Amino acid sequence: MNIYRYEENPLITPMDVTPYHKNFEVIGTFNAGVTEFNGETILVLRVAERPLSKDPNIVKAPVYNPATDELEVVELKKDDTRYDFSDPRVILDKETNKFVYLTSLSYLRLARSKDGRHFTIDDKPFVYPSNIHETFGIEDPRVTKIEDTYYVYFSAISPMGVGESLVSTKDFEQTVHHGMIFSPENKDVTIFPEKINGKYYALHRPVPSATGAPQVWIAESDNLLYWGNHQFLFGLRNNMWDDGRIGAGAVPIKTDKGWLELYHGASKDNRYCMGALLLDLEDPTKIVARSEKPLLEPETSYEVEGFFGNVVFSCGVLVEGDIVKMYYGVADTSMACAELSINEVLDSLTYY
Amino acid sequence: MNIYRYEENPLITPMDVTPYHKNFEVIGTFNAGVTEFNGETILVLRVAERPLSKDPNIVKAPVYNPATDELEVVELKKDDTRYDFSDPRVILDKETNKFVYLTSLSYLRLARSKDGRHFTIDDKPFVYPSNIHETFGIEDPRVTKIEDTYYVYFSAISPMGVGESLVSTKDFEQTVHHGMIFSPENKDVTIFPEKINGKYYALHRPVPSATGAPQVWIAESDNLLYWGNHQFLFGLRNNMWDDGRIGAGAVPIKTDKGWLELYHGASKDNRYCMGALLLDLEDPTKIVARSEKPLLEPETSYEVEGFFGNVVFSCGVLVEGDIVKMYYGVADTSMACAELSINEVLDSLTYY
Repeated sequence: MNIYRYEENPLITPMDVTPYHKNFEVIGTFNAGVTEFNGETILVLRVAERPLSKDPNIVKAPVYNPATDELEVVELKKDDTRYDFSDPRVILDKETNKFVYLTSLSYLRLARSKDGRHFTIDDKPFVYPSNIHETFGIEDPRVTKIEDTYYVYFSAISPMGVGESLVSTKDFEQTVHHGMIFSPENKDVTIFPEKINGKYYALHRPVPSATGAPQVWIAESDNLLYWGNHQFLFGLRNNMWDDGRIGAGAVPIKTDKGWLELYHGASKDNRYCMGALLLDLEDPTKIVARSEKPLLEPETSYEVEGFFGNVVFSCGVLVEGDIVKMYYGVADTSMACAELSINEVLDSLTYY
Repeated sequence: MNIYRYEENPLITPMDVTPYHKNFEVIGTFNAGVTEFNGETILVLRVAERPLSKDPNIVKAPVYNPATDELEVVELKKDDTRYDFSDPRVILDKETNKFVYLTSLSYLRLARSKDGRHFTIDDKPFVYPSNIHETFGIEDPRVTKIEDTYYVYFSAISPMGVGESLVSTKDFEQTVHHGMIFSPENKDVTIFPEKINGKYYALHRPVPSATGAPQVWIAESDNLLYWGNHQFLFGLRNNMWDDGRIGAGAVPIKTDKGWLELYHGASKDNRYCMGALLLDLEDPTKIVARSEKPLLEPETSYEVEGFFGNVVFSCGVLVEGDIVKMYYGVADTSMACAELSINEVLDSLTYY
């Protein structure tokens, strides 16, 4: 497998983005959805901002207040024995082992480029938390273009759980919020770019609690807003690179051999790689082939080191002929891009 | 609050039902959905059957095999240190604290009555596991009648998680399976019996994993098969009878003052009671009132003692004028019925 990582990588880093919130720092510009609009490459960036803190004994947690439309900051003492502060991303309740706060707030911001390598970042958010389901932020957007509308969907995080919500736009200025399309716990949704035999399809990644694992399901819809006929699609593989958690990544790519889905898989020790799945063109609930080995693994310094290292995580690609330009978040910190050949990817898969 | 428990309670017990599976025993006939059909009261019973076991050192787990359409029995040794056998309902993996098997298999069977107190039970299942999402059984049905169709929906259990699936019938003989309508983890769905301002609504109870608790959400649909616009509706209340887990119970009852939902709440030590919620008639995403105290608590011997004691759990009611005939499962074992006055329930609520 030939992987061509751009010389300009990482393409966007937190230093390139000015904080939107006063007294905050940008700690992540990553996991962007991607599309083309008006001749430009548009990255719908996840921007994570963290409250500045001078006191090392205080951990701050940003929480959006939908009643006032303002961002508030909760302060916790690091010696508070109720909480586990060891994961830099979250504050865990030791009793329930669930997170009760995030240490940063993510929202979506646009980055635009003429050449796909050099980006200019908008000053203001494109989509910002706006309701009770988004008080801990919105994360990991994907973009599906259907006719003249861009559907942008993302994880919506709140103390009630993590679900997947949807907005749409025609111009990347005005947006319409369509509410939550997959109820908690769910993330890593990708909506197919066209109807298949009269129905829309989406991959999604529920995280069950009583039994089961974080695995990928497929659902159908007739209007993109309401989803049903949920079916288990593909799962973890013991003692392989994707034995910890998996989730859909890029919007599926239509090829002659089937729908090519570039997905992320993490090992049990949280090393995130990208692999591929091939689904039947006429019936995407059927699996045709899958990667035995990752297509892309964290290897370069910007992939290995960062806020949460050893992560490559794609939320979207652009396709030009046989070339896939896979944009991907690295180390929960920055954005990068690598090019792959569709035919080489298809040849590398194990067919069932 | 006047509660009239039927003198015939429990109305149906495991002893009244012959096992469908050879070498199995019926251990539960409970948590039934209820409706009326052809002048009879129909209970869509959850019947739980357990493999007979002579060896006390062996725990048996029934698993439906969709490839062969047969029920298989897995045998585990009680001294297998990977598992925790302390909960009689499930076999837990000690490492993940998730269940890996159930000790019984549930399916749906009809009980019919002319007077609502004396029931005759069908010999065969009405709905039986039929696909990969139902290999551990189907549980806790509700029935919503819309026009001439009865929609029967239930928890579908498999190693991939617990979701909610839907079948429909017009005659309680032929059924159409519509697949899973709420993906894992979700149960305790109740679908409103009519459209409200052009949309169907359902209450549902996701169980998130990373953050959040088992609480009640509301979703909307235009065809009963695909659901979206998920919104958090109501939650646990600290140090009250419903501080552990809650879920919708009966199909909502239309009253002059709003949609009356009889829901179950469990305390942290798993004592299940029934309470009430009142939702706005025109906009069921708005809460009008709620019970401070339970309407019904486990008090009688058949409610307190059983396979899993201290449980009253209603999946459906019949309404005659001001009287609600609340059918309810007791102690995860049997069925009972109690009558309440709608006006007394409405008067007992705390209005917001």
